[in-house]
Amino acid sequence: MKLREQVGLNIRNLRNSRGLSQEQLALAADLDRSYISEIELAKNSASIDVLERIADALEVDPKELFNERG
Amino acid sequence: MKLREQVGLNIRNLRNSRGLSQEQLALAADLDRSYISEIELAKNSASIDVLERIADALEVDPKELFNERG
Repeated sequence: MKLREQVGLNIRNLRNSRGLSQEQLALAADLDRSYISEIELAKNSASIDVLERIADALEVDPKELFNERG
Repeated sequence: MKLREQVGLNIRNLRNSRGLSQEQLALAADLDRSYISEIELAKNSASIDVLERIADALEVDPKELFNERG
């Protein structure tokens, strides 16, 4: 599995575990909902700055986005 | 410290600990040397795909690039 696929799965799992919609995460991270969707589906390769905003919005250490098991 | 600054420091420290020049890391990761320099100095925000190539070239888990202490 490519790393961006693992990161996308981790973001989706963390988001769902917090009961957040893509729209709510997008608002919290100041990103577009469609962009959150693309990252979760590994359709693009998010930058460090974007990952930082997503991790902050999910209240996790950025390293958790790279965990091997989602 | 912004996350990209921490990641840049970690990459520089890991590269130096392996005795690699920026040129050597760039070759191993199939990136430009100037791009490695920009990432290390946090002048740009690398993407997940680029971080994966750098982690592979440094032979570390991508999570290690996000350690809080370089």
